[in-house]
Amino acid sequence: MSAARVLVTGARGFIGRHCLARLAARGFEVHAVTGSGGAAPPLAQWHRCDLLDEAAARALIECTRPTHLLHLAWIARPGEFADSAANLDWLAASVRLVQRFFEAGGRRAVGAGSCAEYAPSGSACREEETPIAPATRYGEAKAAMHLALRAAARGRGGWAWARIFFPYGPGEPPARFIPSVVEALARAEPVALTHGAQVRDFVHVEDVAEACAALLAGEACGAYNVASGEGRTLREVAETVAALLGGRGLLRFGARPAPPEEPPYLVADIERMRRDFAWRPRIPLEEGLRRAAAARGAQRSAQA
Amino acid sequence: MSAARVLVTGARGFIGRHCLARLAARGFEVHAVTGSGGAAPPLAQWHRCDLLDEAAARALIECTRPTHLLHLAWIARPGEFADSAANLDWLAASVRLVQRFFEAGGRRAVGAGSCAEYAPSGSACREEETPIAPATRYGEAKAAMHLALRAAARGRGGWAWARIFFPYGPGEPPARFIPSVVEALARAEPVALTHGAQVRDFVHVEDVAEACAALLAGEACGAYNVASGEGRTLREVAETVAALLGGRGLLRFGARPAPPEEPPYLVADIERMRRDFAWRPRIPLEEGLRRAAAARGAQRSAQA
Repeated sequence: MSAARVLVTGARGFIGRHCLARLAARGFEVHAVTGSGGAAPPLAQWHRCDLLDEAAARALIECTRPTHLLHLAWIARPGEFADSAANLDWLAASVRLVQRFFEAGGRRAVGAGSCAEYAPSGSACREEETPIAPATRYGEAKAAMHLALRAAARGRGGWAWARIFFPYGPGEPPARFIPSVVEALARAEPVALTHGAQVRDFVHVEDVAEACAALLAGEACGAYNVASGEGRTLREVAETVAALLGGRGLLRFGARPAPPEEPPYLVADIERMRRDFAWRPRIPLEEGLRRAAAARGAQRSAQA
Repeated sequence: MSAARVLVTGARGFIGRHCLARLAARGFEVHAVTGSGGAAPPLAQWHRCDLLDEAAARALIECTRPTHLLHLAWIARPGEFADSAANLDWLAASVRLVQRFFEAGGRRAVGAGSCAEYAPSGSACREEETPIAPATRYGEAKAAMHLALRAAARGRGGWAWARIFFPYGPGEPPARFIPSVVEALARAEPVALTHGAQVRDFVHVEDVAEACAALLAGEACGAYNVASGEGRTLREVAETVAALLGGRGLLRFGARPAPPEEPPYLVADIERMRRDFAWRPRIPLEEGLRRAAAARGAQRSAQA
C-alpha cells in the first residue's frame, strides 16, 4: 500500500487504542485523534481535536489529508450513552466528517456500528436479513450513520460498517459488566446482578481491533458483524470469573431488576467477516476472562 | 391548540408553499423559512436563513422558539438531487436542526421522506413491512434522517415522517415528468419518452400539503406513506395529458433510454395515513391533470 494515511478518531478509547499498532503493522501512516488529554502511546502522530466543532474537524481533515478513515469516536459513557441526546450531536458531526473526508479525496472509511441497531430476535443477527429496528437513541443514531456512511462513500470510495457486539478486555470502562464483576470478586465483595439469563456475544477487544484493521485495509463494502459468533448467558460469564477468582457465593443473581426493554438474546452470525476479510476471532471467552482475572490479580500483587 | 408556533423550512418550495394556508387555518402561528429570495406569500412571518449554516440555523430556532417543526428543506433539483453529495450536507444540517428544535422545547416535528427509501418490489410499499434499501444517495440520506428524527424526538416530543411518493401540481419544477409533458404538448412539440411502462404513485401536491398539516397537528408517531395508493404507468399519464391537450402522436415512447436502476413499480399502501390521521387523497389523477392542462391553457390565453 503506497502512501496510505489513516486518521483514527476515538484513538484513546477502549477500541481505538488497540487499533494503532495493528494499523502501523499493516503499513499505514497512523494519525490518531483524541478529544481529551492524557497519555498518548507513541504509535501514531497525535492530533487533539473536538470533532463536534465543525471548523476544527474540517481543519483536521485538511491538515492530515487522510486516504483512510477509522471513525470510532462517539459518546460511550456506560449507563448514559444509550439514551443520551449527545448521540444526535455525534451523528451530525460524523456525517460532516465522512463528507469532508470523501470531498478531500479520501479512499476508504470504516465506521463503528453496534448490535443495538438490530431488532431483537431469538436467532443470530445477520447483516442482510435481520431487520434494523433499534430500541435506543444510540441504536437509532448508529443505524442512521450506517446509511450516511454508505451515502457519503457512494461513487467516491470504499466503506465498511463494523457492527460491534459486546467488546471486552484491557482498557474496558470499569462500570461495564465484565470489569465490574472482576473487580468486585477480586475485592471479595458481593455482586448485585440481574437474573443473568440474557444471552450475549462477547468479543475480545483485540479481535475487534484486528477486525477494524482488516476492514480498513480490505476492499469489500458493507455492514459486518464483529463478534465471536457465540452466545453466553451473563450468568455463565459471571460464574466463569468466579471460578477464576473465587467467590461464587458472592454472585447475587436477581438482586437487581433487568431493564424491561433489554433483549434476551443478542448473538451474531459472523460468516460475512470470515468470507470477505478472512477474519476470525482468536481469543475464546474463557481465555479472555482468564487474562482479565490474571491482570487484576497482577495489579493487586503490585499494589501489595 | 394554544400558542402553537410552527416553523416551516423549504416554505417557498413546491410542497412548502401549499402548506402555509392550511397550517394557518389549523390555528398555527406560521413562521416560514426560505433560503432564497423572491415572492413570499403573506400567509406567514418570513425568515431568510441558510440552514446549512449551523450558527444561522441555531439562531433561527432561538429567535422563533417553535413548538412545531415542518422540515421540508432539502436539495431537490430535478436530475441532480438523486446522486448529489449535497444530500450529506442536508442530512447533517437536518440532524442538527431537529436536535436544536427539541433542545429548545419543541413539541412535535414532521420531516419529509421519500419512496426512494424503500427497496423496489412488485407490490405496494408498507411502512412497517417493506424493507428500507435505498438505491440512491438521496434515498440513503432520507432513510438516515428518518432514524435521526426518531432518535431526536425520543423521550422529548412527537414526530412523524412523511414518505412522499410522486407529488405533482401547481408550482412543480418544469423539468419533472408531468410539467414537461404538459408544456411540450401545449406547444405542440414532440415529447421524447422512455418505454413508459414504469408504474408510479402520483399524488397531488394539495393532498400532500393537507397530509403534512394533518401529521403536524396530530399525535401518532412514525413513518407514513403520503401517496394516492394507486399506480399508473407513465404511458397512461402521458396519454391522459395528450387526450386533454391533443398531440397523442407527439408522444415518442422509447425515444429515450430508461435509467437502468429505475424501479419498475413504486406504489404506496396508504392505510396507515387513513387510520391514524383520517387523511385521504381528494384529487384523483385525472382531475389533477385536467387542472394542470387547463392552467397551461389559461397561461397561453393570457400571453396571447
